[in-house]
Amino acid sequence: MTKVAIAGASGYSGEELVRLLLRHPEVEITAVTSRQYAGKTCAEVFPKFAHLEAARRIPFILPDAEELARLAEYVFLALPHGVAAELAVPLLEKGCRVLDLSADFRLRSAATYLEFYGKEHPAPELLSQAIYGQPENYRAQLKDAKLVACAGCYPTSILVPLIPLIKAGVIEPEGIIADSLSGVSGAGRKADMPFIYCECNESARPYGIPKHRHLSEIEQELSLAAGRQILMQFTPHLIPLNRGILTTFYITPSRRVTDAKTAAECSQELYRTYQDAYGEESFIRIYGDEGLPDTKNTLMSNVVEIGWKVDPRTGRIILLSAIDNLTRGASGQAIQCFNLMAGYPETTGLL
Amino acid sequence: MTKVAIAGASGYSGEELVRLLLRHPEVEITAVTSRQYAGKTCAEVFPKFAHLEAARRIPFILPDAEELARLAEYVFLALPHGVAAELAVPLLEKGCRVLDLSADFRLRSAATYLEFYGKEHPAPELLSQAIYGQPENYRAQLKDAKLVACAGCYPTSILVPLIPLIKAGVIEPEGIIADSLSGVSGAGRKADMPFIYCECNESARPYGIPKHRHLSEIEQELSLAAGRQILMQFTPHLIPLNRGILTTFYITPSRRVTDAKTAAECSQELYRTYQDAYGEESFIRIYGDEGLPDTKNTLMSNVVEIGWKVDPRTGRIILLSAIDNLTRGASGQAIQCFNLMAGYPETTGLL
Amino acid sequence: MTKVAIAGASGYSGEELVRLLLRHPEVEITAVTSRQYAGKTCAEVFPKFAHLEAARRIPFILPDAEELARLAEYVFLALPHGVAAELAVPLLEKGCRVLDLSADFRLRSAATYLEFYGKEHPAPELLSQAIYGQPENYRAQLKDAKLVACAGCYPTSILVPLIPLIKAGVIEPEGIIADSLSGVSGAGRKADMPFIYCECNESARPYGIPKHRHLSEIEQELSLAAGRQILMQFTPHLIPLNRGILTTFYITPSRRVTDAKTAAECSQELYRTYQDAYGEESFIRIYGDEGLPDTKNTLMSNVVEIGWKVDPRTGRIILLSAIDNLTRGASGQAIQCFNLMAGYPETTGLL
Amino acid sequence: MTKVAIAGASGYSGEELVRLLLRHPEVEITAVTSRQYAGKTCAEVFPKFAHLEAARRIPFILPDAEELARLAEYVFLALPHGVAAELAVPLLEKGCRVLDLSADFRLRSAATYLEFYGKEHPAPELLSQAIYGQPENYRAQLKDAKLVACAGCYPTSILVPLIPLIKAGVIEPEGIIADSLSGVSGAGRKADMPFIYCECNESARPYGIPKHRHLSEIEQELSLAAGRQILMQFTPHLIPLNRGILTTFYITPSRRVTDAKTAAECSQELYRTYQDAYGEESFIRIYGDEGLPDTKNTLMSNVVEIGWKVDPRTGRIILLSAIDNLTRGASGQAIQCFNLMAGYPETTGLL
Repeated sequence: MTKVAIAGASGYSGEELVRLLLRHPEVEITAVTSRQYAGKTCAEVFPKFAHLEAARRIPFILPDAEELARLAEYVFLALPHGVAAELAVPLLEKGCRVLDLSADFRLRSAATYLEFYGKEHPAPELLSQAIYGQPENYRAQLKDAKLVACAGCYPTSILVPLIPLIKAGVIEPEGIIADSLSGVSGAGRKADMPFIYCECNESARPYGIPKHRHLSEIEQELSLAAGRQILMQFTPHLIPLNRGILTTFYITPSRRVTDAKTAAECSQELYRTYQDAYGEESFIRIYGDEGLPDTKNTLMSNVVEIGWKVDPRTGRIILLSAIDNLTRGASGQAIQCFNLMAGYPETTGLL
Repeated sequence: MTKVAIAGASGYSGEELVRLLLRHPEVEITAVTSRQYAGKTCAEVFPKFAHLEAARRIPFILPDAEELARLAEYVFLALPHGVAAELAVPLLEKGCRVLDLSADFRLRSAATYLEFYGKEHPAPELLSQAIYGQPENYRAQLKDAKLVACAGCYPTSILVPLIPLIKAGVIEPEGIIADSLSGVSGAGRKADMPFIYCECNESARPYGIPKHRHLSEIEQELSLAAGRQILMQFTPHLIPLNRGILTTFYITPSRRVTDAKTAAECSQELYRTYQDAYGEESFIRIYGDEGLPDTKNTLMSNVVEIGWKVDPRTGRIILLSAIDNLTRGASGQAIQCFNLMAGYPETTGLL
Repeated sequence: MTKVAIAGASGYSGEELVRLLLRHPEVEITAVTSRQYAGKTCAEVFPKFAHLEAARRIPFILPDAEELARLAEYVFLALPHGVAAELAVPLLEKGCRVLDLSADFRLRSAATYLEFYGKEHPAPELLSQAIYGQPENYRAQLKDAKLVACAGCYPTSILVPLIPLIKAGVIEPEGIIADSLSGVSGAGRKADMPFIYCECNESARPYGIPKHRHLSEIEQELSLAAGRQILMQFTPHLIPLNRGILTTFYITPSRRVTDAKTAAECSQELYRTYQDAYGEESFIRIYGDEGLPDTKNTLMSNVVEIGWKVDPRTGRIILLSAIDNLTRGASGQAIQCFNLMAGYPETTGLL
Repeated sequence: MTKVAIAGASGYSGEELVRLLLRHPEVEITAVTSRQYAGKTCAEVFPKFAHLEAARRIPFILPDAEELARLAEYVFLALPHGVAAELAVPLLEKGCRVLDLSADFRLRSAATYLEFYGKEHPAPELLSQAIYGQPENYRAQLKDAKLVACAGCYPTSILVPLIPLIKAGVIEPEGIIADSLSGVSGAGRKADMPFIYCECNESARPYGIPKHRHLSEIEQELSLAAGRQILMQFTPHLIPLNRGILTTFYITPSRRVTDAKTAAECSQELYRTYQDAYGEESFIRIYGDEGLPDTKNTLMSNVVEIGWKVDPRTGRIILLSAIDNLTRGASGQAIQCFNLMAGYPETTGLL
């Protein structure tokens, strides 16, 4: 059994880590942290887990690096950005392997961090050693990673579908539009007015446009895939779901599509590209052009759904992806990274 | 045109007052108050009203009694309890007629206020002159009222159906159970953790039992109707609706019900009693035993729906009511009171 | 009082016509039709309207043209496409003025109807005389119209924002993308599996892509505005709302945007264009780049909300609109057309 | 690996059986049936399971008893009542052990079946051998059962909390009221008008009162527990949840409660009674009087939550329970029964 701890377990992605790791057959959760709940057990804070024997034993403790390093080999950080880096530094020094779910180590450039997050990076020296926590595309590097910067929720819904297409050169990397819809848990467990029930129910609205923070991370990864600097359009919306992100992409294919025949050829090329890239993957569901993603099919699952239509009228690819923002967009994907790091089969605890 | 003002217009019942009074043909809203929004117009704070010419003129001001009294003859208070009384006192002194939507003046006894609200009543000398703002049952007194204590949302859903039955003696006033379901707007526009979207969506839960504050007001009015002290059971629940209260009552009829025939007679007696009490009312919808209330049929309406089944197996009456907690449970009913006070037809602006 | 009838009043847009016309001060609803409910009153079929005296009188009758023509001067058709045309023909012959909410008369070309609706147009001879029911852009023609083809819900959310920009030449009419989110009432009151509660709640999904029927109508009108044939990309999605359409547009401005300064200039040009086109309109809310549309601000209102951001990084305009699909997207807009036809102030019954 | 089949896998409880049994470590699903989907695989019908290797192999077949008996030792029936019995008879004859999730074998009396279900029982000879599928209270008998009549969803939410209290004599078995709120999946995957999204969203309403079919099963079991014939009041409501039942009970304790002290004693007696009955149970969560059930804490879990308040004012116990209607109310509980029958630890596949 590998000993793990979760720092910041009282938020939604922390709670999702608890949910999944309690059922992980190779893991023992030795501690979880929360300033608010220190002294209680996991079962007391989350009645929903109280029937699980382990939950009645796991203590909430204060977020102390020394204590965490004593208790666990792997520490998941489900903390606000900024706060996560402060804890990551001492944890790494003490020899822990760290999986950070915040944005703190996702960017390779401290300047980009400053531009998008509005403050100096708290530990720029670590940026170069962090591995981006997107297993399908960083599998090899993750195995030996000391510090994993788990991919964000929107970035996951965007990068998993786009990277193979860009790498294979079947789409134009420029001019891509990603129009995303997110459930409200994406905003975290925060008592802020825009997120109270009556402000979200029966509401659909955009926010954070045109330059949402996640763009920094998305464009970094797309640029790496394309081999040159890429800009993209990203429009997040809030809709009345608990969980789920649906992203609709508008993309120009590399081969020109002008009619039904070229559209079908383009569609087949997409299908082959995904087969090559993800044909053996356990968590990627390719609908091709015969089905369409739906967030409800990803609920509490680590799967990324991908589907598309090639439009012979406009020549564009309409690509779609669906994920659960808390599972694949945060905690499930983090555990997938952990499995790679710890040498367990990648799907352990996630099926 | 009668000049009115609304103190505390940034909460949900304040906003609902704005929505309704903007369309009231005999009213001019001269000011609304909010510490947070003072200096803006109603249209700026509520984009949803910005296409209405009046909303672009109505200013948000600070809650100053002198200024309010200068601007308006009638002042609606949509403020937290305690705060409402503080403003009501000087407004009354300056000659305004006040419609208070808080709980401050609903109880006749300052001791009961202390018991249920946990602090000394801020203006006990006014309790005796306040008229309870439940028009169907206090119509005569409301006409000349200076201070109206508008009935609460749960109390309205409970008292409107019960009072005629108790007064007519067709039910046992003892032992009544009211099991209520409320939409989340009932908690107000408050950024508190239990009311954020993901804590309410896909959740049904009781709260505030067994002694919710509204019991004080409900039992006061039931006792007045019965002519003796009455206790009742009241169980509020929160369910994922924006608006609406559904109350299910369990009641013992005065005449014994033992079979289908006596059940039918009991049902007819209920029907006659309601016809006598509410047959001429504009806002009471009596389904009898042939239909059942549904909150969605009361959305944004001042109607109280009432239906029932008499159970020949158990001998009980299962009575049901549905209202919109913000319209009939707060602002619509307050305007109905206002119409009475100002001498307008009672339904003005409410159909 | 002008006498009107509603054919097909049992669906959602029919019910919304009833809701609005019951409150219209210049209108008497003399009959509504439904094969299922013929013989009942409006109050019996819709308990929510039963407290309105008129609703207790209005009869549901069979959809007979002769009877409708006898009872009403204006007939609203809230019927499925195909069925609407069959009733429109005899009603027009008998001298009624007809407002059709179906798709039957929206297309000028019977060939396009065949292409998109899969059957021969039932009354092609009427296509040339139908006026497109989008008041802000067809006001003059609507005044004398005998037959109004009310704009569809998605088309309204798309055309109202786009037409002034295209006419003024400030955007490229080619390559526009409209990504729309619709509440479930857009599918009508139909007992189909994809629309039952548990299939829609906690679900976000695209459908009908890449060639939804409404494209025919949208492209027809955009082409008329541009003076040449225009194709566009349209991606509808279903999200868990009762009512509302939010459309996000991706548009290339005519003037090149490369930095913050040119983006600001472009934004000002959009603002001026909308001021010129809609500055005097009662039902168009222009946020400019300082606010963003939200479906909840249009609930049960005839308003179209429009906002935008010009992105200096990508050079694109992100334009957004929000409407209530049943009010502005169907019945409210139909009544706005009716007001024009009947010579009433355009906002009558709609504020 | 034990071979099991599921008849009627296309409904919600069938799908929930598939979800849970795919993850059950001791089970192989060899076939699932559906007239509509025969010939497809489980992965084709339910994309959400397509990433699981087993789902890609499991065939949908026609509901043929011979074939099912050839393929499986245990057959779960997730079919409408009436239809279930028709398949159960030949399956039992061929030696299968049958877990029926319908109401067909829950009643011991064919006359009661006729009274509540309106038709003759299709296989009355089997009623005496069926074991009621409520594991906490029928554990011993379930081990050797050939035919299990899995408890209904409402009955589970009602009987699990009540039976220990009645058996221990700490409450009056007469006069109990159970007021239940159910999510819409309780109505099944049926394309009926009352269950389409817009009829359920923003709606709270009672139905099936005062004599819902589940009363027959509830009263049978309460009467067995009490040792005499018991009647109870049961009021189901539909609220906008996908999953979940919250039941609020109104109960008279056996010992008289008149003040805070006797209320506390009553509460302690309840606590002791539950500890005696369920203290060792894995799936019963007792809040006592310090917490309150919430459906969201039972989502996709086999747990029954129980909490209460004893009201010193009215002398009543307000008891509450929460379950997931599809997991504990149907498929999870059926698997708990199966584990008992097959000799696996009772929690296998359910934690």
